[in-house]
Amino acid sequence: MNKIAILTSGGDAPGMNAAVRAVVRMALYHGLEVYGIEQGYKGLLNSEIFKMDRKSVSDIIQRGGTVLRTARCPEFKNEEVRKHAANILKEKDIDALVVIGGDGSFTGAKLLSKLGVKTIGLPGTIDNDLAYTDFTIGFDTAINTVMDAIHKLRDTSTSHDRVSIIEVMGRNCGDIALYSGLAGGAEAIIVPEVGFDKDELCKTILEGKSKGKQHNLVVLAEGVGGAEELAKYVEDVTGLDARATILGHIQRGGSPTVSDAVLASRLGARAVELLMEGKTCRVVGIKDNKIIDMDIDEALAVERKFDKDLYDVATILSY
Amino acid sequence: MNKIAILTSGGDAPGMNAAVRAVVRMALYHGLEVYGIEQGYKGLLNSEIFKMDRKSVSDIIQRGGTVLRTARCPEFKNEEVRKHAANILKEKDIDALVVIGGDGSFTGAKLLSKLGVKTIGLPGTIDNDLAYTDFTIGFDTAINTVMDAIHKLRDTSTSHDRVSIIEVMGRNCGDIALYSGLAGGAEAIIVPEVGFDKDELCKTILEGKSKGKQHNLVVLAEGVGGAEELAKYVEDVTGLDARATILGHIQRGGSPTVSDAVLASRLGARAVELLMEGKTCRVVGIKDNKIIDMDIDEALAVERKFDKDLYDVATILSY
Amino acid sequence: MNKIAILTSGGDAPGMNAAVRAVVRMALYHGLEVYGIEQGYKGLLNSEIFKMDRKSVSDIIQRGGTVLRTARCPEFKNEEVRKHAANILKEKDIDALVVIGGDGSFTGAKLLSKLGVKTIGLPGTIDNDLAYTDFTIGFDTAINTVMDAIHKLRDTSTSHDRVSIIEVMGRNCGDIALYSGLAGGAEAIIVPEVGFDKDELCKTILEGKSKGKQHNLVVLAEGVGGAEELAKYVEDVTGLDARATILGHIQRGGSPTVSDAVLASRLGARAVELLMEGKTCRVVGIKDNKIIDMDIDEALAVERKFDKDLYDVATILSY
Amino acid sequence: MNKIAILTSGGDAPGMNAAVRAVVRMALYHGLEVYGIEQGYKGLLNSEIFKMDRKSVSDIIQRGGTVLRTARCPEFKNEEVRKHAANILKEKDIDALVVIGGDGSFTGAKLLSKLGVKTIGLPGTIDNDLAYTDFTIGFDTAINTVMDAIHKLRDTSTSHDRVSIIEVMGRNCGDIALYSGLAGGAEAIIVPEVGFDKDELCKTILEGKSKGKQHNLVVLAEGVGGAEELAKYVEDVTGLDARATILGHIQRGGSPTVSDAVLASRLGARAVELLMEGKTCRVVGIKDNKIIDMDIDEALAVERKFDKDLYDVATILSY
Repeated sequence: MNKIAILTSGGDAPGMNAAVRAVVRMALYHGLEVYGIEQGYKGLLNSEIFKMDRKSVSDIIQRGGTVLRTARCPEFKNEEVRKHAANILKEKDIDALVVIGGDGSFTGAKLLSKLGVKTIGLPGTIDNDLAYTDFTIGFDTAINTVMDAIHKLRDTSTSHDRVSIIEVMGRNCGDIALYSGLAGGAEAIIVPEVGFDKDELCKTILEGKSKGKQHNLVVLAEGVGGAEELAKYVEDVTGLDARATILGHIQRGGSPTVSDAVLASRLGARAVELLMEGKTCRVVGIKDNKIIDMDIDEALAVERKFDKDLYDVATILSY
Repeated sequence: MNKIAILTSGGDAPGMNAAVRAVVRMALYHGLEVYGIEQGYKGLLNSEIFKMDRKSVSDIIQRGGTVLRTARCPEFKNEEVRKHAANILKEKDIDALVVIGGDGSFTGAKLLSKLGVKTIGLPGTIDNDLAYTDFTIGFDTAINTVMDAIHKLRDTSTSHDRVSIIEVMGRNCGDIALYSGLAGGAEAIIVPEVGFDKDELCKTILEGKSKGKQHNLVVLAEGVGGAEELAKYVEDVTGLDARATILGHIQRGGSPTVSDAVLASRLGARAVELLMEGKTCRVVGIKDNKIIDMDIDEALAVERKFDKDLYDVATILSY
Repeated sequence: MNKIAILTSGGDAPGMNAAVRAVVRMALYHGLEVYGIEQGYKGLLNSEIFKMDRKSVSDIIQRGGTVLRTARCPEFKNEEVRKHAANILKEKDIDALVVIGGDGSFTGAKLLSKLGVKTIGLPGTIDNDLAYTDFTIGFDTAINTVMDAIHKLRDTSTSHDRVSIIEVMGRNCGDIALYSGLAGGAEAIIVPEVGFDKDELCKTILEGKSKGKQHNLVVLAEGVGGAEELAKYVEDVTGLDARATILGHIQRGGSPTVSDAVLASRLGARAVELLMEGKTCRVVGIKDNKIIDMDIDEALAVERKFDKDLYDVATILSY
Repeated sequence: MNKIAILTSGGDAPGMNAAVRAVVRMALYHGLEVYGIEQGYKGLLNSEIFKMDRKSVSDIIQRGGTVLRTARCPEFKNEEVRKHAANILKEKDIDALVVIGGDGSFTGAKLLSKLGVKTIGLPGTIDNDLAYTDFTIGFDTAINTVMDAIHKLRDTSTSHDRVSIIEVMGRNCGDIALYSGLAGGAEAIIVPEVGFDKDELCKTILEGKSKGKQHNLVVLAEGVGGAEELAKYVEDVTGLDARATILGHIQRGGSPTVSDAVLASRLGARAVELLMEGKTCRVVGIKDNKIIDMDIDEALAVERKFDKDLYDVATILSY
């Protein structure tokens, strides 16, 4: 193998740049040529490919987002389109592709690998919704961003004796809500894996108030329903003032935390090593605090397990 | 004068605690007794009044929100209610009241002063919408919070080649949008004082894109209309992906900046000095970098002047 | 068991308050009475013991330092003194003690357990120097604080074309330097486990410069030698401007990160469960991403293994 | 006038990039050509001059340091050297030079203006030691960085019942110490303009302790003496544990605050306007909340006035 390429795909996540830097520098260290592809699979189809050197990744480790940018590419589901992509890489003598993204991006990588392109996937998504890895690149930064927002809302919620309902990302995965809610000292955490009963919530809020709690912070994963709606319901039932905050895309931004930058660096370095060993169609991740790799199909088939123990601890400590 | 009281009223703002600390410690320094009132005028009516000493305000200067809490009190518009409030203070031999809040709170203070309670108002609101003072307590912290959010949105906006529309506080006053938008390097800033044309905005966005701009950040003061609606309009007209973020109440939270903590300390100290000089029915503020005081009625009558020069600079620099 | 006590000992660490909150609330949940001890073993000897309820730990999860304060207590090495301490607890019918601290604190706990006091230790130290656990409470916050400082120094180091040498905590353990240096994109990381050659370092710095690197950031664990001295050596040998920064005690402060607050919450909860199960003389920790517990003697005997793989990745990526 | 150049000189300061961006974009708006000079006067002598366009200053407003870099240039005191510099500019048909820096940089600008180069100076230094302007670019960011450090030290100082002595920048000007110390709730602030008595300080510290203060934070401007030395003295006299922290160069780094970014933008814009009006040998600044300009010689002759009133307020509030 002489030439590898790298792209970022799907939603951007803090730490993607640290991963790009690690892939580029580790590859150069092993004497490979490295090419960056702009805007994910869409850019690959448009041949937006450029050579990278050490300086291409100078001073990007601390930057949020992805310098390679990212884009959706629904047409990549079409086999003809993928063949076109594989040909573009072959024409440039690029043997392998590192893909940083989520499950959709991994599926693309797997299908490309069947067309003779060696592929390795890195888990880049703030949602922590890839079951084969304990943590994804971007998750740690996102939960710290959310915790900061919760702390800010606590200030005003306490001052006004209000209920604050904070909607955070995580359509199918409540990890952002769980971790940030526990660390933020939230009174209630609502996740899709457990669900909730609106009236039970109102009861909890009123009990908290009667026990003298000066704030009532509810963290709600977006997958469970809207914060605005819930705030109205809570106001109607409890008679308390309730406000919704939808954090939105600020959760995707920001300079990566140490944990994300280190994870991204390790996974990027490992991806290159796997390619040097001749591996393909694999993803890397961290499991039980060890860097692992796994076949993409197997990885996508791993069933997500919600950390119910942690959820229960959070619930008990919030009383 | 021997005894003074202090309350915070209206929306909470970072730096209110620094102001409370300053009033308490400066009053104690001058040999006065100081009383805190919980939850603004509402708490006054409920006699939620407690004696404060140096320790009551230890380690609060850096805390967001207000330790005295705040509440709405529409019944304070009723004169009988205000007489009741004045009597509560008189029964406790409290001669003077320091009120930290916005224009509604100042009107309450003015009317109380007509009932024989000496009153001084401090401008505590993130909106910077009190015309008699160049800056209000809380404004500097809020604009830094908003700028941080803009920086985070830039990361993801750039990565995805998207338009980000950020709705910030300021119903009648575009200062939060103007300052944070300029410092955040926004492509467009929309304020109630200037207004805007939706189609002009779309043209600006498309021009920016054609000039190679990698992000399009629009900061919108809430007084001008909804961000969600505008995002849809922009998508329809420009064909670009546009996302709305409504920052909401996180703008009110957070530890005060140096500027807010210093302003609050100066104004709190000055309020006590004015009371020592026998003054009443006045507000304190900062004008042309000097601490000033003014009759409440005069202060409320000052007409707000939008800083059009600064707006024009922001516009030119955003090209 | 009916009554338990808790203290923090040794150097303070962010997340200690989250651990105190978790112990208190989990104990109350199980129907126990909980007592806080001020200033560690020293306070225990002075009977600085007070009952805690849910409100005692309200709004402390996000606060740095330890609300129970901490102190050195060299006299605790004396057995008579420890017997006195054990008697104080027995007189108050306190059956068990949770100790949050480092290895010295654990030794104290072990010796107390021999006198009939049930003890559980929690790893609270920013240094990450307890080998039985992958991470200690406070480490994640400290490395993020250090990374932020490195980012700030990069700004000025780049502007001035200077070498910046940053001395961080870690007398015997280079983990703070390694993690923050990797995430901060440092050009060189010096840790006690590997050591270094001053002239090799100077060569690396000059090579970096000749390759066009605009900054030269060196992170130095305090155990390896002084930053000031090293800066002078580098100036003499390379002819470049070099500046030392000794970060010092700011590394101990700050609101805990999500990771520290969650780890502290889990370990605190687990400590109470162990006591409910009748366990004593044990420490809790996290190993391979699982909460574990271990006999104190065994835990203290575990040999620390430096993550040489991670160090090598950091070195390769820094080129 | 058709062509202008810009350089940054002296110590770097957050907001310099915002000023560069403002000068470049305002100049382009007025149809001028703009040239950047690398590394200050030193780079000018080496003809390190390059043309800048809108994109040269994209996404730099939020970056610390200066993208133009800076350097010392003692040889610029030599008239022959300056003539050489003026000739380099004339050969490139560059009529005017904007200089961002401190008093030394302004003196250079003044002398260049005598050689026929139109010059405008912008106050870029964290020290706030230019008397003609109320605030310099970088000061607001620096004091917020210092306040954050004080808050972190408070955590650990409180936990350990220690005296923390924090040495901050400001050789002749105590403003950094004064503003950050007041906002940080420090127990004592030591500035060169007032001086101090070591034994008085020890007395204050002991009094604070006897009043029940849980921390003793002393902020010391570097101009007054060393923190290490003072910590030892305090330990000897008071018997308390005292620790010194020298913040050093992290005070120069970091993303600019809103206030610095806005001030830099305004001053940069004004500098270009002045050149358009044919002005030379002037500096811009902010006085009484208004943008002003002044002859360089006059500006350098303005006597610095320390804000003793603010110092007194800080002292009273710290009791």
